[in-house]
Amino acid sequence: MTQPIAKLYVVPTPLDFGSAFQTPLHQVLPLANLQIIATLTHWLCENSKSLRAFLKRVDAIVPLCHPIQHLNIQQLPAQSESVNVTQSCDLLAPILAGHSMGLASEAGMPAIADPGATMVQLAHSQSIQVVPLVGPCSIILALSASGLYGQHFAFLGYLPKNSVDLHQKLEHLIQAIQRTGQSQIFIETPYRNVKLCTELLQIRHPEVYLSISQGLTLEAQRIQTRTLADWRRHNADLPNRSTPCIYILGKP
Amino acid sequence: MTQPIAKLYVVPTPLDFGSAFQTPLHQVLPLANLQIIATLTHWLCENSKSLRAFLKRVDAIVPLCHPIQHLNIQQLPAQSESVNVTQSCDLLAPILAGHSMGLASEAGMPAIADPGATMVQLAHSQSIQVVPLVGPCSIILALSASGLYGQHFAFLGYLPKNSVDLHQKLEHLIQAIQRTGQSQIFIETPYRNVKLCTELLQIRHPEVYLSISQGLTLEAQRIQTRTLADWRRHNADLPNRSTPCIYILGKP
Repeated sequence: MTQPIAKLYVVPTPLDFGSAFQTPLHQVLPLANLQIIATLTHWLCENSKSLRAFLKRVDAIVPLCHPIQHLNIQQLPAQSESVNVTQSCDLLAPILAGHSMGLASEAGMPAIADPGATMVQLAHSQSIQVVPLVGPCSIILALSASGLYGQHFAFLGYLPKNSVDLHQKLEHLIQAIQRTGQSQIFIETPYRNVKLCTELLQIRHPEVYLSISQGLTLEAQRIQTRTLADWRRHNADLPNRSTPCIYILGKP
Repeated sequence: MTQPIAKLYVVPTPLDFGSAFQTPLHQVLPLANLQIIATLTHWLCENSKSLRAFLKRVDAIVPLCHPIQHLNIQQLPAQSESVNVTQSCDLLAPILAGHSMGLASEAGMPAIADPGATMVQLAHSQSIQVVPLVGPCSIILALSASGLYGQHFAFLGYLPKNSVDLHQKLEHLIQAIQRTGQSQIFIETPYRNVKLCTELLQIRHPEVYLSISQGLTLEAQRIQTRTLADWRRHNADLPNRSTPCIYILGKP
């Protein structure tokens, strides 16, 4: 199969989605990437309203080549929707017709703890060149600034909601840390932060380290790494019910 | 303990270390970060020669506030060196004296598959604010562009060199993929690419996907995701002995 010349760009977006504070784009996106974004006429995205808001911010730094209302913006099918392969391939048809496309989620890197992987996979199956752009990824920012072991790590997404299952899962994570040193990274919806932290502080291994990164790249960014014993003494620093957080359990 | 005002910046650097091609910095580092880098007078780094070369490139875009030869640049202790905590803490003394410091490795994000975590950990223990800057991370670029499952993943560093151990490790990874869907990410020194690929293509699960990202952010960047069966038919696309690669085993 001949490789089409048009490409699928994997486009990271700022981490301030849902926050009152807007991170200046030139803090989180390289200029050359803003220039690529400004040329794209076709988009696949998690949410078209958020994408338009993002493109408006790009336009204020690098003027878009085409007015936003003229762009071809399609939302990714919801994970619950049953979409067949032919329908999904249709979403990439503009690339085969010569138009490069952008793929974006609401915040951060698409396809990582976010939708988009299915489209990337379909692009590969059609020999479409996939080009990831550099931008913010909360998991990596949190890990690099945690001081915890960064040679092996696992990202687990959300932990179980149910207390019994969560308790058991945390026991497994501690065993994995003790056995292999692998840092264990996970996330939680902000309104569950308090509940999750209560459970974390009950882990019976006070020597294990917990790093909490609150509001990464936001004005209120706060990254703290302490043993569980120390967190118990500094519980006023724990996140509230509205801050997006990345949690890491591990050892230095 | 009062928090010092000076900070420890975790500074990502381009992924072109050791390559003849130089990635333009404005493709991989946000402008505001180059501006922060240009102000820093104190550095901790993996290799001072590489850091100076990087700062020279920054200077061509955002003039440094101080000439490179006047900067205070210290190399991180080698992992083999036995360095006590007091000696390590001394490395952070400039921050306590009011000078923000940069922490950099030779390529990509410090402290992730690279040295630096110990210094970050010591910074936390002294209530020093740690600020990670956005920049290139090969693991994340590779995963987002692979089309493989990005909701759960593990980074394993280097796999065993010995064939018997490697074979056993790969069996475990396949089992983990089949049981949990978790994508398995690993790296190898370029001159071992051919040997590793030979082993990967012998895995007895032709339906498993392998994504190989060669030369990320370089001119010769090439990201391909195929089943092992397909890779056997396209083995001319496998990496040679000189390209840095990220490998991912998984399913879509």
